[in-house]
Amino acid sequence: MAAAHHVCGGMLISETHTDAMQYVYRVKHVYHMEETPYQLAWVVELEGYGKALFLDKKIQSALGDEYMFHEPMVQPGMTTHPNPKRILVAGGGEGATLRDALKHKTVEAATMVDIDEQLVKMCDKWMPEWHQNSFHDARTTMVYDDARKIIAQHRNHFDVIISDLTDPLEEGPSQMLFTKEFYQMISDALTDEGVLTVQSGCTDPLYPHLYGCIAQTLKEVFPIVRPYWCFVASFMLPWGFILASKKHDPLELTQADIAKRLEERGVTGLRYYDPGTHFGMFQIPPYVRDAIARGRVLTDDQPYFWEA
Amino acid sequence: MAAAHHVCGGMLISETHTDAMQYVYRVKHVYHMEETPYQLAWVVELEGYGKALFLDKKIQSALGDEYMFHEPMVQPGMTTHPNPKRILVAGGGEGATLRDALKHKTVEAATMVDIDEQLVKMCDKWMPEWHQNSFHDARTTMVYDDARKIIAQHRNHFDVIISDLTDPLEEGPSQMLFTKEFYQMISDALTDEGVLTVQSGCTDPLYPHLYGCIAQTLKEVFPIVRPYWCFVASFMLPWGFILASKKHDPLELTQADIAKRLEERGVTGLRYYDPGTHFGMFQIPPYVRDAIARGRVLTDDQPYFWEA
Amino acid sequence: MAAAHHVCGGMLISETHTDAMQYVYRVKHVYHMEETPYQLAWVVELEGYGKALFLDKKIQSALGDEYMFHEPMVQPGMTTHPNPKRILVAGGGEGATLRDALKHKTVEAATMVDIDEQLVKMCDKWMPEWHQNSFHDARTTMVYDDARKIIAQHRNHFDVIISDLTDPLEEGPSQMLFTKEFYQMISDALTDEGVLTVQSGCTDPLYPHLYGCIAQTLKEVFPIVRPYWCFVASFMLPWGFILASKKHDPLELTQADIAKRLEERGVTGLRYYDPGTHFGMFQIPPYVRDAIARGRVLTDDQPYFWEA
Amino acid sequence: MAAAHHVCGGMLISETHTDAMQYVYRVKHVYHMEETPYQLAWVVELEGYGKALFLDKKIQSALGDEYMFHEPMVQPGMTTHPNPKRILVAGGGEGATLRDALKHKTVEAATMVDIDEQLVKMCDKWMPEWHQNSFHDARTTMVYDDARKIIAQHRNHFDVIISDLTDPLEEGPSQMLFTKEFYQMISDALTDEGVLTVQSGCTDPLYPHLYGCIAQTLKEVFPIVRPYWCFVASFMLPWGFILASKKHDPLELTQADIAKRLEERGVTGLRYYDPGTHFGMFQIPPYVRDAIARGRVLTDDQPYFWEA
Repeated sequence: MAAAHHVCGGMLISETHTDAMQYVYRVKHVYHMEETPYQLAWVVELEGYGKALFLDKKIQSALGDEYMFHEPMVQPGMTTHPNPKRILVAGGGEGATLRDALKHKTVEAATMVDIDEQLVKMCDKWMPEWHQNSFHDARTTMVYDDARKIIAQHRNHFDVIISDLTDPLEEGPSQMLFTKEFYQMISDALTDEGVLTVQSGCTDPLYPHLYGCIAQTLKEVFPIVRPYWCFVASFMLPWGFILASKKHDPLELTQADIAKRLEERGVTGLRYYDPGTHFGMFQIPPYVRDAIARGRVLTDDQPYFWEA
Repeated sequence: MAAAHHVCGGMLISETHTDAMQYVYRVKHVYHMEETPYQLAWVVELEGYGKALFLDKKIQSALGDEYMFHEPMVQPGMTTHPNPKRILVAGGGEGATLRDALKHKTVEAATMVDIDEQLVKMCDKWMPEWHQNSFHDARTTMVYDDARKIIAQHRNHFDVIISDLTDPLEEGPSQMLFTKEFYQMISDALTDEGVLTVQSGCTDPLYPHLYGCIAQTLKEVFPIVRPYWCFVASFMLPWGFILASKKHDPLELTQADIAKRLEERGVTGLRYYDPGTHFGMFQIPPYVRDAIARGRVLTDDQPYFWEA
Repeated sequence: MAAAHHVCGGMLISETHTDAMQYVYRVKHVYHMEETPYQLAWVVELEGYGKALFLDKKIQSALGDEYMFHEPMVQPGMTTHPNPKRILVAGGGEGATLRDALKHKTVEAATMVDIDEQLVKMCDKWMPEWHQNSFHDARTTMVYDDARKIIAQHRNHFDVIISDLTDPLEEGPSQMLFTKEFYQMISDALTDEGVLTVQSGCTDPLYPHLYGCIAQTLKEVFPIVRPYWCFVASFMLPWGFILASKKHDPLELTQADIAKRLEERGVTGLRYYDPGTHFGMFQIPPYVRDAIARGRVLTDDQPYFWEA
Repeated sequence: MAAAHHVCGGMLISETHTDAMQYVYRVKHVYHMEETPYQLAWVVELEGYGKALFLDKKIQSALGDEYMFHEPMVQPGMTTHPNPKRILVAGGGEGATLRDALKHKTVEAATMVDIDEQLVKMCDKWMPEWHQNSFHDARTTMVYDDARKIIAQHRNHFDVIISDLTDPLEEGPSQMLFTKEFYQMISDALTDEGVLTVQSGCTDPLYPHLYGCIAQTLKEVFPIVRPYWCFVASFMLPWGFILASKKHDPLELTQADIAKRLEERGVTGLRYYDPGTHFGMFQIPPYVRDAIARGRVLTDDQPYFWEA
């Protein structure tokens, strides 16, 4: 065929966050495609952002900026706890959440629960840059099961729990992992000093509703609830997290406290999180606070469904 | 023609920030298209973000989230100055930057300099939601000329200058408005208590280079240089600004100071900026600080050109 | 905003014929957008194909290749009739079908029936290159009404009828204009020597089903049914038509007959149709004949709905 | 990440034939990607058209409609020759051109010359539906070399030569395989009854120039030159071929002759070519004849380069 003025040729992945926009990634190579019992997984090489994981055609993380997601996911909670020894990661199949938590040398035992064993095995093989062998760290126990079931088996046990679950789509595997009942189980599984951080969806002005609901739901269970946000370049969106805590407040630390904890625990090489951005992330703007005010409590009876 | 399973049909605007991605906006309606002596201007209605302005096929602002750009552009500088009476806006053709500055009732005289009169007239007519009549405010003087020429005519005059110029593309109209020599003219045009804020380009991990260069250049001229950032949803990017100041430091205020100034000056209705986000925005992450460290000083002899 | 390596920027119209593909047109300018009581109409300037009409986001015709559609729509039927004096065009809002029929100076009276008066008026104003004043030809009578109602009012009257209607979408305005009952009305409205040509949808291998159904339906009413096809560049698809006739067979002519008729009637300036392509178009390939064999008869009770 | 109203998600391949349009294919799966010494090869599964080969990001053929290209490529020439025993295929790496030629049981010896051995081996493994083992047919000799060099080694030898080469891009591997000098070599390599068919590029109204040039060039060498065309659905374009012949004229046959030859030679299962479409394809429209009239003779000194 004739190759003429090829201005836009090539392989793309198009993702539609909302009716408003399409996010189109340029693909240099496809490393691997696999359908697990739970999702369709693609490992590809993107222009600019490098190797990336897509699940069900939606980007999960890219090597070039995965720190913009994983450090905000992990570090505020880990740092807020004075001495995190026993931790649990729910979800986070790439292994980067686990990796970032294990950087704290206080950690003695890390449990990672992911329902999709095939996906984790695939990430283990195809995405070593993410997990950096943390699946095989001596402190790690891998559990392939429903996070709700596993968490319900523990009482007063974990110092930090990190909920890195996919958004609660209707009838999806995560829908019941964002409810008041589930957060109560987490609270029970945590010690009295326990800290939870929750991946809570995007925080752009068009679709901040899930974020508001998770915040309201956590407030039903935890005395300290601190929404925070960051920006993930390859998501092309601002992203929301919430820290919920039984005793320790991330805003009662000083920048010096955080610097000291990171140093003592041997946490280095961070590119998004530091003592300054710790506090910057908790400064959410009025439009997001308004979205939180409009959120409703999610329950097992009335879980989240997509509400625009 | 046959209309079948029309899943993706319709009018789109595709914008390529980098090789890595395409940002595709869904267009509901085209209100107006006009070619000025300086640029191609489109006023369209987008899905989700509503009415929007594109210049040379690139989004400038959208009604649904223009506050995510214009409040960070304007408010940190205005609030940092204890009593801004005389201000100048360079660029900012939509009029929203001027509008946000005029909210401070301390302002007695506002000069807006834009080289593209036809564009401003077009915005005046087609985009009233942006300027909200600020072009016709009794305090406003509109000047259609080169910002560099106008600023050079003033000494010790302005309290706040807001540089809302398009990025310094090679041989574009703004290329010489980001150099050390130009910033020295601005410094001279400011009073001893003067404050400058500069639109400084994107701050994603792929292309933060311009941001670093502007920061280094401002440090050559101003004693206080404070980089800050925000996220603009319809740009699908984090965005960088820099506050440069001769005396007042935005970080030496308290949240209470800011709240008081906003209240005293009658500034209401903000959705991104408040006493909390004021401080949050100045917390830039390590990867952006690294980009600043790698920046070079821009001069009239060696201005910015696109450096990936 | 930063303008970098803009490889794919700009305004586009994306159309999805099937799940398989997207047809993306590059738009240079938008002349006019209007919502009529029946459809959303856009008149735009495309790269390459020039001015173009889109209805409900689907291309109808482009100036650069409208002859690839309108000549096959009109000329085989007009030429097959030995002396077409009274003709009717159903649909064809752009006026190019009427224009091509009026080229035959045998025509004494042309009736054009289109249900969408606002659309025709818009085409009259914005698309003069198509109709070339044929709406205002002394021989033309414009009727803004349902084609079925108007055709039912005539008996033994028209020499040629040209059905240039949009595809029969479910509950769309054309659904009942592709049924056996409607074709019987057309047969009654034609003289004993009458000829009909029908716009019959695309003929690519994925979706030739409508074409097959129209062919089977016409066979129920007319003794001579001759499917033919062409290719319309800006549709990016092969396109199907069917000639149905009470007495005259397009395949019983010779190339010399056709050349003589075109010359005697003053038909010049054709770019797709000539005595050779007349016969070429009636040579449809086995895969299309197979689609015809699988077609079903469309009736008022069981009209067409999209059947993949 | 949040999965919301996913209207357009997924993997795509975008191809730009001209500035005017983008052809976007939806990709269900990527089977294989390989960079040969000559080109980047992708074997993917498309929505609708099924398994497909892309070379250098441009579609070559798709399982669902490869017959729309390969039958017109092969059958008119094979059928025009009264008794093709020795044939040569130049290019055609997928093996489908060879396969379609071998259907004629008159063939005793088939030589396929392709410069890209790695590509042919890849097609042999990944695309058996195309070649249907014809690479390993006892009559086949595979030669991995420059077609020009191999053809120059033969005199008065081949009955039919099929030139299924990629378009002559500037400095591409095929540029010197579309010149008068090369066609003279082909003429010399053919017997006095020899027939040549040439893949000759697209024939849409925007870019028919290459087609015109090849036609003019062949006229310099062969006494009988018959342009013909077809439509290839997955190319979304009409496609041009030219039959050049030393003695036999495809237009002097009758439909009965063709039917007889196909039957005697055991050629069955065709979906595009038959005695009717044989003649239909040679009926090219005035706009394409005009493009031929504007073509220039291509020579080794002045080969083709992209001329819009």
